[in-house]
Amino acid sequence: MNVRVYVTPKKGILDPQGAAVERSLPNLGFQGVSGVRVGKIIDLSIDGAASVDAAREQVDDMCRKLLANPIIEDYTFEIEE
Amino acid sequence: MNVRVYVTPKKGILDPQGAAVERSLPNLGFQGVSGVRVGKIIDLSIDGAASVDAAREQVDDMCRKLLANPIIEDYTFEIEE
Repeated sequence: MNVRVYVTPKKGILDPQGAAVERSLPNLGFQGVSGVRVGKIIDLSIDGAASVDAAREQVDDMCRKLLANPIIEDYTFEIEE
Repeated sequence: MNVRVYVTPKKGILDPQGAAVERSLPNLGFQGVSGVRVGKIIDLSIDGAASVDAAREQVDDMCRKLLANPIIEDYTFEIEE
């Protein structure tokens, strides 16, 4: 099964990478861009999961333990059989 | 307009971050995970674009000039009015 995980900084959490992008854009001639937030995509394949539900549980566990920091980041994911 | 940009390492390009995640997973008890690739999500708002087409052109330009490195990364994006 192919999995795509989306990890984004929680609202209200400082995002220095997003702030750096936002400050750079006007210098490159892009006006009117605001609210820049930078997150992560993690693509992966899981073999041997008994079902989509089992895979879902496993990926959720992976997100909480390694892929995201639940204190400062939100995550969602999509599983494709 | 709200924009979400997806930046992923091109196929065949070494992805050390993905490799690090992949090597960590078995130590945490997750078996059967392969092909881990880590990319970026950039969320932003654009004001003052005349149309969706104009915004699309602007975002594409932003991707090529700042948000992605087209030599080693692919990008796609979604625009929501």
